[in-house]
Amino acid sequence: MADVITTEYRLASEPALRAFAAAALEKVGVSSEDAAIVADVLVAADLRGIESHGVARLEPYYVKRIQAGRLNPRPAVTTVRETPTSILVDAGNGLGHPAGKRTMDAVLAKAAEHGAAFGAVRNSNHFGIAGYYAMQALERDMIGIASTNSVRFAAPTFGRDVMLGTNPLAFAIPANREPAFVLDFATTTVPKGKLEVYQRRGTPLKPGWAIDREGNETLDPQVALTGALLPLGGYGVDNGGHKGFGLGLLVEILCGVLAGGAFGNDLPLPDDGPLPGRISHFFAAFTIGGFRDPLQFKADMDTELRAFKDSAKAPGQDRIYVAGEIEHEKTLFNRAHGVPVHAKVWNGLQSMAADLGLPFEIAKR
Amino acid sequence: MADVITTEYRLASEPALRAFAAAALEKVGVSSEDAAIVADVLVAADLRGIESHGVARLEPYYVKRIQAGRLNPRPAVTTVRETPTSILVDAGNGLGHPAGKRTMDAVLAKAAEHGAAFGAVRNSNHFGIAGYYAMQALERDMIGIASTNSVRFAAPTFGRDVMLGTNPLAFAIPANREPAFVLDFATTTVPKGKLEVYQRRGTPLKPGWAIDREGNETLDPQVALTGALLPLGGYGVDNGGHKGFGLGLLVEILCGVLAGGAFGNDLPLPDDGPLPGRISHFFAAFTIGGFRDPLQFKADMDTELRAFKDSAKAPGQDRIYVAGEIEHEKTLFNRAHGVPVHAKVWNGLQSMAADLGLPFEIAKR
Repeated sequence: MADVITTEYRLASEPALRAFAAAALEKVGVSSEDAAIVADVLVAADLRGIESHGVARLEPYYVKRIQAGRLNPRPAVTTVRETPTSILVDAGNGLGHPAGKRTMDAVLAKAAEHGAAFGAVRNSNHFGIAGYYAMQALERDMIGIASTNSVRFAAPTFGRDVMLGTNPLAFAIPANREPAFVLDFATTTVPKGKLEVYQRRGTPLKPGWAIDREGNETLDPQVALTGALLPLGGYGVDNGGHKGFGLGLLVEILCGVLAGGAFGNDLPLPDDGPLPGRISHFFAAFTIGGFRDPLQFKADMDTELRAFKDSAKAPGQDRIYVAGEIEHEKTLFNRAHGVPVHAKVWNGLQSMAADLGLPFEIAKR
Repeated sequence: MADVITTEYRLASEPALRAFAAAALEKVGVSSEDAAIVADVLVAADLRGIESHGVARLEPYYVKRIQAGRLNPRPAVTTVRETPTSILVDAGNGLGHPAGKRTMDAVLAKAAEHGAAFGAVRNSNHFGIAGYYAMQALERDMIGIASTNSVRFAAPTFGRDVMLGTNPLAFAIPANREPAFVLDFATTTVPKGKLEVYQRRGTPLKPGWAIDREGNETLDPQVALTGALLPLGGYGVDNGGHKGFGLGLLVEILCGVLAGGAFGNDLPLPDDGPLPGRISHFFAAFTIGGFRDPLQFKADMDTELRAFKDSAKAPGQDRIYVAGEIEHEKTLFNRAHGVPVHAKVWNGLQSMAADLGLPFEIAKR
């Protein structure tokens, strides 16, 4: 399952990459505090091997949207409603990462005091990997949950309109010696980027991934890109497509509807023009100590995760991975060897640096 | 998607069926309070069209297990740990339904006071449909979550050992005029009962459902029944099988590990002999009022659910169903016309009534 790091990749220094990403955002008006948070979330994605959500998105998703006036670099972030165990934040059409991290911080503080708390953010923008926010709970011996809606790419079961985002859900649960359980997944079968990869390669899609504009399943990547993604479980109900659709709609409700943000037909399509931040996020945390001694729980987590990892393998497989394990190993490897950045992304960052008048010194030495 | 009610089904009176189920449980020593809860959960499943979890299970899962001494009809249920926002209950190897319902009641009371709460139950048994407990939140304008682990039927991604239950997750979110959103799904692609149906029919399975004993995908129902179910998303990772595995393991952790119950290799296999209740459950609830005015939220839920239902249909489809909608319509229909009970199940109940010395007057008049 691990991606092979070929010569198409160059290795960046982790602190230099983080500093560069932050500097670029500061150049377009983001406060240094906010820029540092965004940079940390993006580099965390690259460290975890989730390139699609890393520094590759710095320019197109954040810098350019700020430059185009679509996203406010200095938003007025306000708390709309707050109780001892809940908080609803309006991100003021700012970057999703600082609003997300700070709201999860507030949720964790409330949960530390009261045992459990929930949070939501509206009027926000793309916040990177959902897992980052769920993982904020780990060091506090809590279980963390994070989610976000997104621009629309997917159709409901039995439908053909593009109605749902890839709507990821993330859960983070600490262990002791084993890496934490971190489940962070899109509720569509595959992300849109996968269709693009198959289009470039000229290879057919797998069944269960996408439909054409008329709502028929298609294996043609070009046709699929003008159609819609399918929910986890695929076409129709035979393989549980209605479960994936249900999960996607759950995320829409917990984010858009609960936060009082955009949802349903008001959620933007990918090709909609400049739109103010219509993305919403959802967070939750609760203390393990409310149920069991955290040390005992984490020791049991080790036993549990090992039971699965040590179980018999399917033919041709030599490992069973539990959620978050690959990303944890990649993080350790990339921390030691440098953060792999695809050559195209590297060159893009370099030319953005030139445009912004920034030094570009990210190479691992 | 609706099941056709043929002459294979007979119609029972809802109150008579509930009273009969309760009487049968009382006959084997269950208290009248507990018996009434079990009966309500079972009949709710039949009303919702989830026959597999209804009165069909009354004798094999509950009455016979009590008679065999596997399940304690008068358990000592104890609260192991409790905080203002959490509760951990030991069900004393009793029926799962009363322990589940009362723990969710406690979670809802805590959430009503503090805004959010979580609960878990260990040393329990099969509790019927998870959706029942999540739906307890609806009338209180809360969002409810319920889950349970189960005996093992499924293999992890890249594995071949039977390691995971069907591990359902349920979420209930209220709406106003629209039926509530109730997502209640097994984290395997299909339930084990589906393999048995295909075996009886002699038709091949679909890809993505099951593996043989060696861990290869199989379409042969007989072979699959000696193998394992696959997680939602199917074989390997191409269609997101690792996501379904992650969800199944999440449920195992939130139930078995968090509750301090059985998990991993200690969780029973279906053919294990008489085992004390090693099943655990998980519950959560939080108030909508912590985020928004509940009336406004529920009006927005109507808009949201209608947006999906009114969106364009795939070829050959005339409806898009949101989670819980079919079950809601079946409940209304069955309430009006009688609860459909399969002739085989009906006859089984009748012979159990004779064995227990109970009158059998469940027919709808």
